[in-house]
Amino acid sequence: MSFRYSVGLWLFGELSDRFTTYHPSRNLEEKFSEAAKIKSSRGVEIMYPAEFTYEKVDEVKNLLRGYKLQVSGILVDLFANPKWIYGSFTAKDEKIRKEALETSIQSIEVAERLDSKIVTLWLGHDGYDYPFQVDYNEKWDMLVEGIREVASHKSNIKIAIEYKLKEPRTHIFVGTAAKALLLVNDVDLKNVGVTFDIGHAFYSYESPAESISLLHRYGKLFHVHFNDNYRDWDHDMIVGSVNFWDTLEAIYWLRRINYEGWLSLDIYPYRENVREACERSIENIELMSELIDKVGFENFEHCIKSENATEIVAILRNVFR
Amino acid sequence: MSFRYSVGLWLFGELSDRFTTYHPSRNLEEKFSEAAKIKSSRGVEIMYPAEFTYEKVDEVKNLLRGYKLQVSGILVDLFANPKWIYGSFTAKDEKIRKEALETSIQSIEVAERLDSKIVTLWLGHDGYDYPFQVDYNEKWDMLVEGIREVASHKSNIKIAIEYKLKEPRTHIFVGTAAKALLLVNDVDLKNVGVTFDIGHAFYSYESPAESISLLHRYGKLFHVHFNDNYRDWDHDMIVGSVNFWDTLEAIYWLRRINYEGWLSLDIYPYRENVREACERSIENIELMSELIDKVGFENFEHCIKSENATEIVAILRNVFR
Amino acid sequence: MSFRYSVGLWLFGELSDRFTTYHPSRNLEEKFSEAAKIKSSRGVEIMYPAEFTYEKVDEVKNLLRGYKLQVSGILVDLFANPKWIYGSFTAKDEKIRKEALETSIQSIEVAERLDSKIVTLWLGHDGYDYPFQVDYNEKWDMLVEGIREVASHKSNIKIAIEYKLKEPRTHIFVGTAAKALLLVNDVDLKNVGVTFDIGHAFYSYESPAESISLLHRYGKLFHVHFNDNYRDWDHDMIVGSVNFWDTLEAIYWLRRINYEGWLSLDIYPYRENVREACERSIENIELMSELIDKVGFENFEHCIKSENATEIVAILRNVFR
Amino acid sequence: MSFRYSVGLWLFGELSDRFTTYHPSRNLEEKFSEAAKIKSSRGVEIMYPAEFTYEKVDEVKNLLRGYKLQVSGILVDLFANPKWIYGSFTAKDEKIRKEALETSIQSIEVAERLDSKIVTLWLGHDGYDYPFQVDYNEKWDMLVEGIREVASHKSNIKIAIEYKLKEPRTHIFVGTAAKALLLVNDVDLKNVGVTFDIGHAFYSYESPAESISLLHRYGKLFHVHFNDNYRDWDHDMIVGSVNFWDTLEAIYWLRRINYEGWLSLDIYPYRENVREACERSIENIELMSELIDKVGFENFEHCIKSENATEIVAILRNVFR
Repeated sequence: MSFRYSVGLWLFGELSDRFTTYHPSRNLEEKFSEAAKIKSSRGVEIMYPAEFTYEKVDEVKNLLRGYKLQVSGILVDLFANPKWIYGSFTAKDEKIRKEALETSIQSIEVAERLDSKIVTLWLGHDGYDYPFQVDYNEKWDMLVEGIREVASHKSNIKIAIEYKLKEPRTHIFVGTAAKALLLVNDVDLKNVGVTFDIGHAFYSYESPAESISLLHRYGKLFHVHFNDNYRDWDHDMIVGSVNFWDTLEAIYWLRRINYEGWLSLDIYPYRENVREACERSIENIELMSELIDKVGFENFEHCIKSENATEIVAILRNVFR
Repeated sequence: MSFRYSVGLWLFGELSDRFTTYHPSRNLEEKFSEAAKIKSSRGVEIMYPAEFTYEKVDEVKNLLRGYKLQVSGILVDLFANPKWIYGSFTAKDEKIRKEALETSIQSIEVAERLDSKIVTLWLGHDGYDYPFQVDYNEKWDMLVEGIREVASHKSNIKIAIEYKLKEPRTHIFVGTAAKALLLVNDVDLKNVGVTFDIGHAFYSYESPAESISLLHRYGKLFHVHFNDNYRDWDHDMIVGSVNFWDTLEAIYWLRRINYEGWLSLDIYPYRENVREACERSIENIELMSELIDKVGFENFEHCIKSENATEIVAILRNVFR
Repeated sequence: MSFRYSVGLWLFGELSDRFTTYHPSRNLEEKFSEAAKIKSSRGVEIMYPAEFTYEKVDEVKNLLRGYKLQVSGILVDLFANPKWIYGSFTAKDEKIRKEALETSIQSIEVAERLDSKIVTLWLGHDGYDYPFQVDYNEKWDMLVEGIREVASHKSNIKIAIEYKLKEPRTHIFVGTAAKALLLVNDVDLKNVGVTFDIGHAFYSYESPAESISLLHRYGKLFHVHFNDNYRDWDHDMIVGSVNFWDTLEAIYWLRRINYEGWLSLDIYPYRENVREACERSIENIELMSELIDKVGFENFEHCIKSENATEIVAILRNVFR
Repeated sequence: MSFRYSVGLWLFGELSDRFTTYHPSRNLEEKFSEAAKIKSSRGVEIMYPAEFTYEKVDEVKNLLRGYKLQVSGILVDLFANPKWIYGSFTAKDEKIRKEALETSIQSIEVAERLDSKIVTLWLGHDGYDYPFQVDYNEKWDMLVEGIREVASHKSNIKIAIEYKLKEPRTHIFVGTAAKALLLVNDVDLKNVGVTFDIGHAFYSYESPAESISLLHRYGKLFHVHFNDNYRDWDHDMIVGSVNFWDTLEAIYWLRRINYEGWLSLDIYPYRENVREACERSIENIELMSELIDKVGFENFEHCIKSENATEIVAILRNVFR
C-alpha cells in the first residue's frame, strides 16, 4: 500500500528561526517548481494568504496544472502575519477575532476553488505565556464559537484543527489530541476534525499510534503531517530519522484504519537540501510500509494481541531479516 | 476562605521506591493516629482494600470517630496488589477485569458506609510500555465499559477518574485532563468525573489552573490532590516548594470556581518527617490563599483581563508587600 | 546589595521566530536610545559584528557616552550570519573556522576599545542534529584549539563560553555547565571561563544555584545572563515570572560568592513592551535580593546547614512576612 | 565483533517500585542459577553488600565456578540500605560518611577476591530535593575526598563513578557525563573513571555516542550499562526497543574506540520474563553489531565525514537491505 504524499509549500521559503535564515527566499512559481521535483510526491499544502492572495487563485490553479500537483490542504495563516501574535479566534481584540473568521472563511473558498477538501486551522498564538495571563474558560468559548462559525460556512469542506503543545506560545490552548477532540466535540459539526502532526504527538509524550487510533475512533482524523524529533521540541526533522519504532507503529495504524487522506511533510530542513530531505522522508515512510508487509500484517496483529514485550521485540526484529 | 484538607493515609506507611524503604511500617491505628496529629487537616483519603479489608469497616468507623477524622475519599487499590500489573479494567485476562469491577463496586459500598461521596479510580497499570504492545481502541472500549458498570452501581457516589501521564507504566491510557474528560464523556454518567492531581498536571505540561478551569467547565472536577514537582516527574514534594506562581494560580482558580470539595495531600515525603511535610504543605496553601486576599481578588481579575504580562508581573509582586 | 544590570542590545531588534516578527526593526542609535530608558540598567551587551561593523566603533563609543551606558560584554556573532549554520570553530569548512577565529579576535579588539572586559562566545551552531552526523572527538579538538587561539590574543580580555543544551542545533557541543568547565579546563588559559545563562541552566535540569557554585569553585564564572522559562525550552521570559524559589536561590548564591560582574538580561519579550519587560525583570531581581535581606542572610545559611526540607520551607516562607 | 555481556544480579530479585512488587524474591543461589540461563551472557554484576555479606564471598566464588560465570563488576550498595537515604560520601552525618568509605573499601576487597577489576560507585542519594537544601560546594569537596580515599586503597582496581541525573533524589550531584569527568579530574587518580549507562545518557539529553566518545577521550570509560527508555526517565527497558538509531550509533562508537570492557544489562523488566528480556536485549545488541558490518564500518565513517543529514539517512537505510 502506498500513501498519497504532499509537502508544505512553505518548505521552499527562507526557513528562518530566531537567530538566522537558512535558505534563499523563492517566489511562488519557484516554490511550485521545487515541490514538483520531489519524487513520489503529488501534492502541496499551501499556506493562505501568506503564500498568495485571493487575486492569485487562478494563477495558482495554473501552476498546479502546469506542475501536475494537487492541493492536499490549505493551512490558514493565523500565525505568520504579525497581527495574530495575541491570538486569532481568542484574541482580546474583537477586530482581530473578526479577521480570523474572515480569513478562515476565505480560505474555505480558496480550498474549494483549488479542489481541496481540507482546511487546517493551526492556532499557534491562541494560548498564553505567563501564569494569570488569560481567562481559560472564556477563551475556550471563543474557540468553540469561532470554529463553529467557520465550519458552518460550507459543510463539504473539512475543517481540521491542528493541535500542538507549545511554540510559538509557551502554552497553546489546543495542545493535545484529546484536547482537540474535546474541542471538536464541543463544536459539534460533522465537518470539524483534527490534523495530526506526528512530531506534535511525540513531544506531548503521546504515542503517535495511540493518538491516530483515538482520533479515528471518533471519525476525526482528517489530515496528517509527518516529521520527526527527539520528543522534546518540534524540531521537524526527516521522518524516521530519530524514532524508528514509534513511526513504524504509526504507519501500521494508518494502514490498519485505512487512512485515505494525505501524508503531508511538515519538516524544516534548515541545513539540508530541501528536496533531498523530503525524498528521504518519503522513502523512509515507503520503506516502513514495506517492512510491515515483510513482517506480515497479521504478525503485528499477533504482537498486539500478545501484549507480551519480549515476544513483540522478537517479532519486530524481523524487519531486519 | 479556607479549604477542607485531608491527607492520604498511605503517607504513613513505609514509603518505598525501587531502591529502598524510607519510613517504618505502621498498622492501621497508628496511621490514623499520625493523620490526626496534622494541624488543620480533618480528613483522610483511604486506599481500599490495600489499607483495610471489608471486615474491618466498622473498626475504621471507630477509628474515624475516635480521631475525629472524616473520609475525604476512597482510592480504590487497582495498582498496589500485584495482580493488577497488567492492568485492571483493561487487563487482557477477563478474570482480572472482573475483579477490578468487584473491587471498585465494593469500594463504593465502603465509601457509603464511611460517609464519603468520592471514590477515585487511578488506573496506573492500565496502559502500555512498548510500541506495538496494545490495541488502543479495544482498551478504550474496556475503560468506558468498566467505568460505566462501576458508576452505575450507585448514582449517589461520585466516581472520580484520576489521570496521570506515566508511572508505573511508561504510558497510562488516562494521561491528561482532556483525555480524562473525553473518557468521562464517553461513559456519559452524571456521577462520573475527575480527580485532579496538581503534580500530574505539572508534568504533563498542563497549566494546573487551566485544567481546573477545563474540568470545572464540564462540571467534572470531583476531587483534588496537591503536591509539587519539577515539571518532569511525579516527585510528590511539599506543596508550593518548587512552583510558586502556578500553584498560586491554581488556588486562585479553585476559589474562583467555588470548589467545595477536599484538598487532599498526596505527597511522598521520603526523607522528611511526614507530619511536618503535611503541615508545611497546608500552611503553604493557606498562605497562598491569604496572599490572594492581600493582593485582592479583583486585582487578579484585572491581571487576567489585561492579558498583559508586564502588568501581571507588577501586580503579582504585591504578594510580597 | 545591588547588582550591575545590563541588557542585550538585540532585545530592541525585530525579535522574530520561525513563524513571524514581533517588533519593528530599529537602527543602532534607536537601540541605544531604548536601552538607555531602562530604569536601573547602566549597561548594554552588544552583538558584534551583527549590530555594528568595525568602522562604527567610534560611533558606538559616542553613543555609549551620549546615553551614559557601559558595555557589559561583547557577544560574538557566530550564529546570526548564515555563514555559521554548519558551525563556527567546528565547521567542516576550514575557511569558516578561520573566519570564526578572525571574527572572535576582532571582537576582542572591539571589546578593548569599548572598555569591556568580557567577550562571550556562544557556539549555537557548533553541534549536530542527527545520529551519526559528526565525529565528536574531532570536533572537541577543534573547540579546544579554536578557543585557545582566540583567548591567546589578549590575556586581559576574558573569553566567556556560553553553554546551552540545544537550539538552534538539536544538540550543541557545549551544552551544560560541567561540559563548559571541561572544555575550559582543556583550553587551560586563565582568561577563559564561562557565561552562565539561568534559563539554559533551567532547561538542562541544572539547579542554577548549583551551577553558579560549581563555576565559581573553579574561578570561571565570568558573566551572567538572566531570564526565565518552564524548564523545557529557552523561552527567555521575564526574570522570576515562573521559577521563584530557584531564582531566589541563584541570587542568594551570586551574593554569597560575591559575584561582581554584570547581570545581563537576555530575555525575548516577543509580545511585551521590551522596556517594561526589562524593568519588571530588574525589579524582580532587586526584590529577591531584598527578600534575602529580609529573611536574613544567616537564616539561609541555617537552611542549608540543616539540609531539612520541612525546616527550609518554613524559613523560606518568611519572604512573605 | 562480539561484546562480553553480563547482567545485574539484582534483576532476579523482586523488582518493586513505589506501588507494588513484580517478581518473586529469590535467594542467592537461585539468582545465580537464573543468570546462568541467559544465552550469550557470561557475567554477573553484583551489588555488595546488599546481595551477600563478606562472610559469603567463598560461597559466591563457588557459585560463580559452578555456574561458569564471571563477575563483570561490583556495584557498591550505597543506596539500598536505608542508612544511605541522606547521602553516602556527602551525608551530613560523619558516621555515615565513614561507613560509605568502609563499605566501598570492603567492596574493593570483594572485587579482588572475585577476580573483578571494576567497582562501580553509584551515588543515588548524594544530591538534594529542594532549593536551598545543600551547600553545593562543600558537598563537591566531600565527593572528591571520599572517592579519592576509596580509590587510593588499591590502585589495581578501577573505581567507576556512575552518573545519573535524578532518581532517587530529584537532583543527584554526579548527574551527567561531563560532571562525572569533572569530578574524576578533581580526584586525579589513574584508577578512577566512569560507568556509562545508556539510559542515563538518554534522559539527560546526551547523545550516548557523544558521551562514549567524550569519556574515552580522557581514558575514563571503565564500564557500560545498557537498557532503553523514552528519553524522559530511567525506565530501564529492553535494549533498542525504543531508540534504535542512537543505540546503533552508541554500539558503533563502542566498536570504534575498541571498548573491551563488559556490556552489562541494567534493565528492569517489571512485567516481563526476566531471562527473555535479557536475551532480547543481547540479541538486539548483537543484531546491531551485525547491521554495522552489513552497512560496512567504512560507510559509517563516510556518513560522519560528510556531516550531511540526507546522505546519512540514505546510508543508514542499508541496515534494512
